[in-house]
Amino acid sequence: MPALLSVDWGTSSLRVYLLAPDGTIDDEREAPLGIMNIGDGRFAAALEAVCRPWLDRHGPLPAMLSGMIGSRQGWIEAPYLPCPVDGDTLARHLTPIPVEGFGPVLLAPGVTVRGPDGVPDVMRGEECQVVGALALSGRRDGRFLLPGTHSKRVEVADGRITGFRTYMTGEAFAALRHHTILGRLMGTEPGDGSGFERGVDAVRGISGAGGLLHAIFAARTLRLFDELPEKEAADYLSGLLIGAELADAPSPGKMVTLIGGEALVDRYDRAAARLGIPVEVAPPACVRAGHLALARRAGLLHA
Amino acid sequence: MPALLSVDWGTSSLRVYLLAPDGTIDDEREAPLGIMNIGDGRFAAALEAVCRPWLDRHGPLPAMLSGMIGSRQGWIEAPYLPCPVDGDTLARHLTPIPVEGFGPVLLAPGVTVRGPDGVPDVMRGEECQVVGALALSGRRDGRFLLPGTHSKRVEVADGRITGFRTYMTGEAFAALRHHTILGRLMGTEPGDGSGFERGVDAVRGISGAGGLLHAIFAARTLRLFDELPEKEAADYLSGLLIGAELADAPSPGKMVTLIGGEALVDRYDRAAARLGIPVEVAPPACVRAGHLALARRAGLLHA
Repeated sequence: MPALLSVDWGTSSLRVYLLAPDGTIDDEREAPLGIMNIGDGRFAAALEAVCRPWLDRHGPLPAMLSGMIGSRQGWIEAPYLPCPVDGDTLARHLTPIPVEGFGPVLLAPGVTVRGPDGVPDVMRGEECQVVGALALSGRRDGRFLLPGTHSKRVEVADGRITGFRTYMTGEAFAALRHHTILGRLMGTEPGDGSGFERGVDAVRGISGAGGLLHAIFAARTLRLFDELPEKEAADYLSGLLIGAELADAPSPGKMVTLIGGEALVDRYDRAAARLGIPVEVAPPACVRAGHLALARRAGLLHA
Repeated sequence: MPALLSVDWGTSSLRVYLLAPDGTIDDEREAPLGIMNIGDGRFAAALEAVCRPWLDRHGPLPAMLSGMIGSRQGWIEAPYLPCPVDGDTLARHLTPIPVEGFGPVLLAPGVTVRGPDGVPDVMRGEECQVVGALALSGRRDGRFLLPGTHSKRVEVADGRITGFRTYMTGEAFAALRHHTILGRLMGTEPGDGSGFERGVDAVRGISGAGGLLHAIFAARTLRLFDELPEKEAADYLSGLLIGAELADAPSPGKMVTLIGGEALVDRYDRAAARLGIPVEVAPPACVRAGHLALARRAGLLHA
C-alpha cells in the first residue's frame, strides 16, 4: 500500500514519487510545472493534476514537499531554520498546507547559516537530500556536495547539518557561456573530456578570487591561438569552475559524498579525481529517503 | 595645422580626434560605428564618413588606428607582438591599409604574453594607451590598470610593457547581473556608494578562486534577509568583482596608474582606497598621446 507522496518541487519542474512505507517507489510522475511556470498561485491545482490518479485509487495520501516551492516565489514561504539542524528539527518545523483531497500536506523548512563574515547563506530542498543520504547510509558525519545551478557543500557532524556554502557554479557557467565573449569561439558539439581535464588542471594556477576573473579568459585566448579545439572550450570553462568550487574547502583531503543527477555528479567525480579529492556517490534516492524520514518523524507513517 | 587622425576603434564605437603635431585636439567626432555594427566589411566607408569634412578641408591626412579594429572580426587582423614591447617596437610593426583620400593609414599591432601557466593573454588598443601614458608622464616604469569589459593590468619596466593580465570583470558583472538570479532582487536606481564599499570590503573574506563563486551569492542572500537595500545590491556585486580584481596582484602595495573613462576609473579609485592600494589617475588623453608617439616614431609627423 502506498503511504506517502514525496514531492520534489523546484524552479523548473515538479517530481512526485508514490512511496510505500519502506521507501519502495510504487509509481512516479514528472511535469514541467516548476514554480516559475505556474501562474496565479495555482499550486494546489498543479499538485492535484499530477496526483489525481493516485488519489482516486488510494484515497487522501499525505505529501511531503521540499524545494523552491517553499520560497517567497513559491506556494507558501517556509521558514529557514538556522544551523545546526537535524532531521528531528526539520520534522518539528514543517509547514502544513490544507489541500482538499489530500491527507496532510507538509512543506519542509529551508536552512540558513552565517559565514565567518556574517553573511547569510540559504538552502531549500538540499537539506532533505542530505537527511535522506544519512538515512540511507546510516552515517552521522560527512561532507556532502550537491552540484547544480547553485551547488551546495554541506558539512554534517553527529547527525546534524552544521554548516554549508552555496557556489553559483552552474549558473555562472551558463551566464559566462551564453552571455559573454567566451561563448563566441565555443563549439556546441560535445567534447571528448580533454578540455574539461585541462580546465580542472588550470585551477592549481589560479592566484585567488580575482585570479578566477583572469583564468576564465583563457577559454577565449586558447581558442584565439588555436591551442584548444572548438568543441573543448565549453568543457574547459566548466572544468575551471567546477574545479575551483571543489578546491575551495577546509581540509580538502576529506571525503566528499556527491548527491545529484548522474551527468553532473560524473563531472564532479572526474574533477575531484584530478584534484586528488576522495569522493563517493550517494544513491539517487536521497530526496525520497529524506521525505520518508521526515514523514516518519512527523507521524505521517504508521509503519 | 592638423597633422594626424587618431582613431580609437572598438567593438561598439568609433572615436576620431583631429590632432595638431603637439597633440592639441583641433576637432573630434564619435559614431556608433564599432566593428560589431559594420556590415560587409565596410570599414573604409565608415572611416571616410566620419573624417570626410576634415579631409575636404585639410587634404589627405595620415591616420593611426588601434583597438578591436585590428582583430579577426575587424578590418585587417594586425599581429600580436610578444612582450616585452615598447613604443619603438609597436611603431616598427604597424599594418598599413591603403584607403583612398587619406594619407598613410596605419593599424597598431596588439600585444600578447604567456602567463606562468603557459596560457596566452592578449590586448588590442590598451598598449597605445599605456605608450601614451608613458609619453605624457615621462615615466619609464609603473603598473597601469585599464578598467573595462575586459580590464587589463599592465606592468611596465624600463619603458617596455613586460607583461599584463586580462580580467573579465566588466563582462562578468554584466552577465551575472542580467543573466542570473542575482539580478532579480537588484534595483535599477543608483546606490549611494555604501553597497559598493561593502562589496569591496567583502573581498578580504574570500577564500580563493572558488570562494568568489560563493561570495557573489551574498548579493542575493543579503537581499533575502533584507540586510542590503535593493538599490545597493548591484553595486555590492560590482564592488566585490572590482575589489577581487584589484587585490589580485603581486606586491599589491605598488602604485597603480588608472587609465580610462571617468566613471569607471572613479569606481576603481574608491575600491583601491578601501583596499589600501595607492593609485593615481592618468590624464584622459592617453590614447591620443599614444597614437601621436607611434606616428612620430613611424615618421608620419614632420614636426
